[in-house]
Amino acid sequence: MQDSGVDQANRESLKRVLAANPVLIDVVPACEAIPGLEPRVVLHAGPPLDWQAMCGPLQGAVLGACVYEGWTKNRREARRLAEAGRLTFHPNHHFGAVGPMTGIITRSMPVFVVENGAFGNRAYCTINEGLGNVMRFGANDRSVIARLKWLESGFAPLLQGALRAGGPIPLSPLVARALAMGDEMHQRNVAATALFAREIFPRLAGLSVRRSARVRAVEFLTGNDQFFLNLAMAAAKAGLDPAGDVAGSTLVTCMSRNGSDFGIRVSGLGKRWVTAPVEMPRGLYFPGFGPVDANPDIGDSAILETWGIGGFAMAAAPAVVGFVGAGEVTDALRYTREMGEITIGRNPAFPLPALDFAGTPTGIDVRKVVKSGIRPVINTGIAHRSAGRGQVGAGIAHPPMACFTRALEALDALVSSRSEGAGQVANRERNPD
Amino acid sequence: MQDSGVDQANRESLKRVLAANPVLIDVVPACEAIPGLEPRVVLHAGPPLDWQAMCGPLQGAVLGACVYEGWTKNRREARRLAEAGRLTFHPNHHFGAVGPMTGIITRSMPVFVVENGAFGNRAYCTINEGLGNVMRFGANDRSVIARLKWLESGFAPLLQGALRAGGPIPLSPLVARALAMGDEMHQRNVAATALFAREIFPRLAGLSVRRSARVRAVEFLTGNDQFFLNLAMAAAKAGLDPAGDVAGSTLVTCMSRNGSDFGIRVSGLGKRWVTAPVEMPRGLYFPGFGPVDANPDIGDSAILETWGIGGFAMAAAPAVVGFVGAGEVTDALRYTREMGEITIGRNPAFPLPALDFAGTPTGIDVRKVVKSGIRPVINTGIAHRSAGRGQVGAGIAHPPMACFTRALEALDALVSSRSEGAGQVANRERNPD
Repeated sequence: MQDSGVDQANRESLKRVLAANPVLIDVVPACEAIPGLEPRVVLHAGPPLDWQAMCGPLQGAVLGACVYEGWTKNRREARRLAEAGRLTFHPNHHFGAVGPMTGIITRSMPVFVVENGAFGNRAYCTINEGLGNVMRFGANDRSVIARLKWLESGFAPLLQGALRAGGPIPLSPLVARALAMGDEMHQRNVAATALFAREIFPRLAGLSVRRSARVRAVEFLTGNDQFFLNLAMAAAKAGLDPAGDVAGSTLVTCMSRNGSDFGIRVSGLGKRWVTAPVEMPRGLYFPGFGPVDANPDIGDSAILETWGIGGFAMAAAPAVVGFVGAGEVTDALRYTREMGEITIGRNPAFPLPALDFAGTPTGIDVRKVVKSGIRPVINTGIAHRSAGRGQVGAGIAHPPMACFTRALEALDALVSSRSEGAGQVANRERNPD
Repeated sequence: MQDSGVDQANRESLKRVLAANPVLIDVVPACEAIPGLEPRVVLHAGPPLDWQAMCGPLQGAVLGACVYEGWTKNRREARRLAEAGRLTFHPNHHFGAVGPMTGIITRSMPVFVVENGAFGNRAYCTINEGLGNVMRFGANDRSVIARLKWLESGFAPLLQGALRAGGPIPLSPLVARALAMGDEMHQRNVAATALFAREIFPRLAGLSVRRSARVRAVEFLTGNDQFFLNLAMAAAKAGLDPAGDVAGSTLVTCMSRNGSDFGIRVSGLGKRWVTAPVEMPRGLYFPGFGPVDANPDIGDSAILETWGIGGFAMAAAPAVVGFVGAGEVTDALRYTREMGEITIGRNPAFPLPALDFAGTPTGIDVRKVVKSGIRPVINTGIAHRSAGRGQVGAGIAHPPMACFTRALEALDALVSSRSEGAGQVANRERNPD
């Protein structure tokens, strides 16, 4: 394909991304939102992989999910189930879903339902569990299961009632405002969470529920600065999916890691994964931990950077640069400027005050990454490499360059085969989902 | 006094300001907090003035307060009362209180009680009424009175209950965090209000009250981005008062305007006001209004700048520079840097990310203002000059330079008279309050 054809395709795919209008419309059990989420089906972060290939935290989260769902009595039984091949694994991304870190979704877990008002597609993400001992970092003890049970039976019904009675909540305006308030929406969601709380509290106040239930819900929401992370991820997923199949476009529609492989999807390649072994994040560790404890890069949360926020909006959040060990305040601007070199455009809906209100760099172009040698920057949490140990730090991660060189080869191959009259190859190349 | 003596005195007064720990401890009717707030006593913004000298909005607010308190049936009767000299007027500042714009406080109005944990002194401020037709901008119709009545009988008791059951709320951490989230706490309190909401909502959720009352309270609080303004003002007042009487100190402890005069107080002059005619603010006007509609500068809110936030923290809030018509984003940094030239130190409790986490410039030095010719910058709302019309814009205001030259003369005179053995002059110079 001629470069001008690619440019035209990229204009179309970027246009779709910029038109996104993600709106939180509901909270429902995952099996209501996602058809096929039967017992013993486990969705996970990143591209496909099987039990044997899973890292410690991912296996730990899977075992916890089996106990949470009541498929087994304990983690030992759960491990036998997994090793016997009696669990079915799929990537979240195959079902319009995303999850941070291990990203486990099973049928009973409540998920946010975010609808892209511009296109009608929907995306799903679980409710953020808070910090400490949590399933997304591979923890799976009784306290983890108990919290998930309360999210399911206590918290989610309240959120659902509040949303159904008080109406949907558009998410882009909250993201835009939070970017002007020091968040980048990946490692810092303080402002976005507070702004979301201002939206949801009047709705919650109108519900007739027991006082103790209301207090616990409000305290949970106000006690977790990262509550909005999962909403931002669902918004990003809903915003990117409509750009998922523009023939010839080199725009990246998904970046995701399963702790073993890094996978990207590119608009012109449809739903096909292009993968390469995942790298280690570099960052700062909590006291008592170091690089030797770290799990390789993991999580669907890089959907944020794919959407132009997170590491791409570092200029919005100088405090994050220090938190992830990426330098000084002035480096924040440099990160965002650098991402401008590998993206197709800017998102005027997300202006950055520190860059004189220029929009966030949006729409990673596979060609520009390969040509410039600049890889996308991802702000990430770092999990302990063993199951059940939780978060040990935060840092910066990059996709392996091989994802982009291979994607470009595949795009070129597709163009060649097309020009030989095999115009339907794209569909054959797709994953079955 | 030798310069070195002044420097030493200023170190002491600044030390007191920086030690401040303002904590919201209660909400009570003003007459419970402020002894002497009898019927027909009206507290107002700025230095002392009588009825005849009052500008339109201030007179309008006074008339409204008479009706609100039930001292008269209507505004016509209230005017007769005022003109007959049967109302008693005092500045808020004479009672540890502050109020934005007209700043009216009468006995039944609920006030925040903010205690400075480091010194035990208390400061008071009314509850922010929101935007539109409000008493602080001189409006006084039935809707204004009705809202004030609801604040008194509906909202304040809930806040009181929440604080007494859930415990006090330290305010400096909220200010510090909000400064890192785009607020400067005078014309922008979006983040601070959201952070305050996160503190108060769990407390409110625990109260047994009617659902409709809870919903209205939560909607009022979440619907007003400037809710935190009055809390910030009370915090600033509580933080500055302990520095009010350090012999020889040239640190400004209060800046305030009544719409006719601008008054400052200086540590070494105790409670004495140094006044000069107030100037017009320069700024941007809402559609349909212009400078011809503007009232001269008014309000106690310049206590924020005196404390080192508001205009002094413009670097924290690039969006405010545009709102007040003061230039581009880069100008925000310039304003804060300039204020560094007329202040004694920096407040490490309030670091500004955009200035590599340097603290807010704090402790205006009368000597530096006179020597440099740089006047403090105040971010301000602009009221319509006629009573009852409300806000017409927002802008920048400055104290008249005469306040500072006269204060310096008075300080010099005090030193001369002291060196002649009249060490007690300072007390005679004080206002009776």
